[in-house]
Amino acid sequence: MGKSILITGGARSGKSALAERWTLEAGNPAFYIATCRAYDDEMAARIAEHQGRRGPEWQTIAEPTRLVEALQETDGQAPRLVDCLTLWLSNLMEDEADVAAETARLVAALEAQHSTVVLVTNEVGLGIVPENALARAFRDAQGRLNQAIAEVADEVYLAVAGQPLKVKPNAHD
Amino acid sequence: MGKSILITGGARSGKSALAERWTLEAGNPAFYIATCRAYDDEMAARIAEHQGRRGPEWQTIAEPTRLVEALQETDGQAPRLVDCLTLWLSNLMEDEADVAAETARLVAALEAQHSTVVLVTNEVGLGIVPENALARAFRDAQGRLNQAIAEVADEVYLAVAGQPLKVKPNAHD
Amino acid sequence: MGKSILITGGARSGKSALAERWTLEAGNPAFYIATCRAYDDEMAARIAEHQGRRGPEWQTIAEPTRLVEALQETDGQAPRLVDCLTLWLSNLMEDEADVAAETARLVAALEAQHSTVVLVTNEVGLGIVPENALARAFRDAQGRLNQAIAEVADEVYLAVAGQPLKVKPNAHD
Repeated sequence: MGKSILITGGARSGKSALAERWTLEAGNPAFYIATCRAYDDEMAARIAEHQGRRGPEWQTIAEPTRLVEALQETDGQAPRLVDCLTLWLSNLMEDEADVAAETARLVAALEAQHSTVVLVTNEVGLGIVPENALARAFRDAQGRLNQAIAEVADEVYLAVAGQPLKVKPNAHD
Repeated sequence: MGKSILITGGARSGKSALAERWTLEAGNPAFYIATCRAYDDEMAARIAEHQGRRGPEWQTIAEPTRLVEALQETDGQAPRLVDCLTLWLSNLMEDEADVAAETARLVAALEAQHSTVVLVTNEVGLGIVPENALARAFRDAQGRLNQAIAEVADEVYLAVAGQPLKVKPNAHD
Repeated sequence: MGKSILITGGARSGKSALAERWTLEAGNPAFYIATCRAYDDEMAARIAEHQGRRGPEWQTIAEPTRLVEALQETDGQAPRLVDCLTLWLSNLMEDEADVAAETARLVAALEAQHSTVVLVTNEVGLGIVPENALARAFRDAQGRLNQAIAEVADEVYLAVAGQPLKVKPNAHD
């Protein structure tokens, strides 16, 4: 079966670099599933620029919300990197989608897959409680999503200063 | 002697679920010491609802500030879960209580106890420095409290995406 | 060669106490390189008070920005504690210095040194995205700096509730 690896961490903690390295170790070429949404031409240009910089070993798929479909369509072909679950969640919430249902579909896809996937997400709940209600709702949703994916992932890491701290498997598994 | 286990982590990191599981593994039935303060009827109703959902293995004690007394009164009977030190601290600060003195009393109670206790707390200091002075004071107080309890705890865990990362004992103990 | 140890963590997570202990274990007396900037007489008085409290085993060097020079001047004499990289970075940004160039010089100094250095830094990127643009720029810069130093450090720890969680070396090194 395909392995699922979740890499979480704070901003600029080196999550994406670890994810890129581990995805290519699983297989080369690989798919890069980008979940950022291009709101305007400037952002679209930046996304294209990032894509160009990543090099020929990556085939980029831009999919702001249809992540499950992107995983299913690429399964069995090559390893996949998902960068990142935080933007996917943000897009789903912006569209007022059913986050719990989408999370359940993602969990099912991870359990059924044949190719490795490395998923990047963010820790956003270790600061003081935000005064903004939307920010509080987002950090709750992010925490629930991270728990659900970590539950089915084979390996979970917390990136700290670019270094991977193993979170799962652990002594309690 | 009774074992003390501290579980810290961010918002929605799965701390309480881990704490509930480990408390019941230490003994069933168990005490659930809830430190949240019911400010109004709506909140009181929500607390009662949570209590009902927890099931018959838990005997709930609501104690927003008199945590040390609750631990002493239940000691020798069954394991205890304290959920959570963050609300306890918040209530003490709201009442302008002597936090350092209360912390010292809690440390002494943990060192003298005969039953296991699992304490839930929060990490609130890993974001950018808050602009709000009260928020800065709270995160300093939370950090000091967490250090004091971790110092006497037998085991300390950081919950990350629902997974327990062992913090103590460690190679430096 | 001199060993480099990086201790990161949130506010009031016990980073400095760990750093002081480990520096003195490497050698006594030791240098305390303080990077805080005295903006006024009150702050200068507080810094002097802290310095007095640290005891005779420490020789304090106040250096808000010329950290690399302080490390070079003390090298070969005794272990050094740097408290902390976050204030150093903040001072560099305030002075509109070239942070990337200063980081490269610091990395080179750590690679060439003969005495042990223990460096304290902060995790500031694990909360919700700050609304303030300057705060976002700072947390990005802090993350990049932490990664660069962790990359060359022999050991990296995350302080959690006063306890050192080993981040490097890890299974992926």
